[in-house]
Amino acid sequence: MRTLLKFLTALLLIGSTNGIAGESDSGCLTRGTGDMGIIVERASGSLKIVDRTSHSILFHVDGLGDLSHASAVYSRDERYAYVFGRDGGLTKVDILCGKITKRVIQGGNSIGGAISQDGTMIAVSNYEPGGVKIFSAADLSLVADIPATQVTEKKGAKTVGLVDAPGQRFVFSLYDTGEIWLVDMSNPSKPVIEKHQNIGLQPYDALISSDGRYYIAGLFGEDGLSMMDLWHPEQKPRKILENYGRGNKKLPVYKMPHLEGWAMAGGEAFLPAMGQHQVLVAQRGSWKETGRIKVHGQPVFVMARPDGRQVWVNFAFPNNDTIQVIDTESKQVVKTLTPGKGALHMEFSPRGEEIWISIRDRDEIHVFNTSTMELTHKLSVKKPSGIFFTNRAHQTGL
Amino acid sequence: MRTLLKFLTALLLIGSTNGIAGESDSGCLTRGTGDMGIIVERASGSLKIVDRTSHSILFHVDGLGDLSHASAVYSRDERYAYVFGRDGGLTKVDILCGKITKRVIQGGNSIGGAISQDGTMIAVSNYEPGGVKIFSAADLSLVADIPATQVTEKKGAKTVGLVDAPGQRFVFSLYDTGEIWLVDMSNPSKPVIEKHQNIGLQPYDALISSDGRYYIAGLFGEDGLSMMDLWHPEQKPRKILENYGRGNKKLPVYKMPHLEGWAMAGGEAFLPAMGQHQVLVAQRGSWKETGRIKVHGQPVFVMARPDGRQVWVNFAFPNNDTIQVIDTESKQVVKTLTPGKGALHMEFSPRGEEIWISIRDRDEIHVFNTSTMELTHKLSVKKPSGIFFTNRAHQTGL
Repeated sequence: MRTLLKFLTALLLIGSTNGIAGESDSGCLTRGTGDMGIIVERASGSLKIVDRTSHSILFHVDGLGDLSHASAVYSRDERYAYVFGRDGGLTKVDILCGKITKRVIQGGNSIGGAISQDGTMIAVSNYEPGGVKIFSAADLSLVADIPATQVTEKKGAKTVGLVDAPGQRFVFSLYDTGEIWLVDMSNPSKPVIEKHQNIGLQPYDALISSDGRYYIAGLFGEDGLSMMDLWHPEQKPRKILENYGRGNKKLPVYKMPHLEGWAMAGGEAFLPAMGQHQVLVAQRGSWKETGRIKVHGQPVFVMARPDGRQVWVNFAFPNNDTIQVIDTESKQVVKTLTPGKGALHMEFSPRGEEIWISIRDRDEIHVFNTSTMELTHKLSVKKPSGIFFTNRAHQTGL
Repeated sequence: MRTLLKFLTALLLIGSTNGIAGESDSGCLTRGTGDMGIIVERASGSLKIVDRTSHSILFHVDGLGDLSHASAVYSRDERYAYVFGRDGGLTKVDILCGKITKRVIQGGNSIGGAISQDGTMIAVSNYEPGGVKIFSAADLSLVADIPATQVTEKKGAKTVGLVDAPGQRFVFSLYDTGEIWLVDMSNPSKPVIEKHQNIGLQPYDALISSDGRYYIAGLFGEDGLSMMDLWHPEQKPRKILENYGRGNKKLPVYKMPHLEGWAMAGGEAFLPAMGQHQVLVAQRGSWKETGRIKVHGQPVFVMARPDGRQVWVNFAFPNNDTIQVIDTESKQVVKTLTPGKGALHMEFSPRGEEIWISIRDRDEIHVFNTSTMELTHKLSVKKPSGIFFTNRAHQTGL
């Protein structure tokens, strides 16, 4: 009797943890995932999982390794974040349960990743040993290993600017050898690789238009960018914005701009000019320069509010305490904010009413109403960098 | 002792229902909501809640009243669907638990609704008594009641083409009086209404561009459409595509085309021509006609794949057994499918690799791979009509 009672009591204790509203077994949440996100805590290799409706922190997750320059993508159900760490770590995090589901060290020095159109595969690009590895989104088992062009006997080219594209494709650039590669994973056991050479000197990052048509790589070794129309790969990549001036003036570059944070608004693209205090404007399609906007410093992220009416810009050191807002119609800076040093990353809510900004040196996230441009909320997060909301799951190239 | 044992056993039984994988208390699911959706079963006033990854049905929900022409929007967390029924019913459905959370009869004959940019308010437009009512998304309590212009002593104008717009706005048209109204709900207790008159005869439906800038109402009483640039309301609505020919030929209209299912691809809009076997093409911005594409019947929905490369079209009776696919670059019909009679509604997966089509007379949903245009899955659903995936939560105007 006593044993039975003990047994029942033990079972009951297990059962009773399920009683909290919205929580199921093991402390997992029963809730929609459409208004959730993660914030990278760079210095401590940890994440905060957030609720963007209540502006609150739901979970703290440790043990993700080196998260400098970390980025993330989401599973198609918006339950799992795949976090790409600088140490080559690929970590699958369950945001409903606030825990790591699986973690692999897949390379020596990784620089970002992407998820396939159908959500079944995760691709990771590596500086070392170079190349791209593709994993099953379910269990992170290796699906394909695509080594880059060899640079030395032991070393492949650094792969950068990896994005997903429609048709189960991944696209990336090779820094050392000036190439763009398209990988068609329609048949996962037989990747079809299309290689484009001589695309320009030292592509360092790239972007894809939100419709997945145009792939544009920034060049570190020369002026301009290299653009490829993925509807017409037979036309080969071509140079655009070739004379924007970086090459001439040889300005020091304090921080490489991030092209994945580009902005497309009303048929025009807004791009960070490397090394200069300017945002470049180009016409979509022709990719001719249509304007330059003078800004407060060297732009890092140039991001369009989802409705395209505003572009928000942050800056490299020593101007990284400032954020500027550009009106895309008048092409004027309409607001200058100084939220604090280390204003590193920005993320819009999917319908654009809010923007969340990481302020590293304050250990805070600042949330602004984008209509009034006023600060509405603060969250405490330790040395925050990247902010990634779950709606990215539904978008190409994010 | 015996009593204690009974008590513990009873508690244990309650606890044990929580033990099923993925289920929490009361049969609710613990899972991401990003790959879920609802399918309207028109004849039976019920819904199926689906998983679009496994192509399976998770729940059946009864008791939603008259669902002819029903539409739906999602809460920002993608957990709740708000279903607008023809009988004036507004029903909040919990898709994780497969049950109705709240249901109100808010008008006599409702024709669709929208959710505010921040997700706090649901607006419903009514044929009878006319006007728009705005409810709290949380508990469906009334926030604002906006009567339409009176047509007779007892009757207001029918309100149609209700959409959400950036800046906490709702926009709609008045059929009987030819008006477009903008309602700013930034202060929910003080709606600010801007009324534009003489916008054209009998606006019957409308659309908003995905960036929330252009509001375009189709006109039943005359040729053309009425376009309003919401960035410049001071410029007033103006007529576009005035000579597309409906008025001249006076063709019978078997079914009013749905403008909310319009397509924007590569800077061009693809629109159903009312009464004609044509899809109209117009340049975004200038809104000048750039082409017409001959199709199989009177188009009802003209929808762009999310990457804009394809447009899928279905047709009014007697051609509603057919679907055509247009290549947006060549403007050619590249595929004609005949999935069965009553091919009423289409919904793309958010990244475009699949399209789900309701085939009413077969009591089936057919799922096609959009690359191969081949049928990949079938689901049994009773007299299916509208299909709504949760990613709509993150989009303006859907």
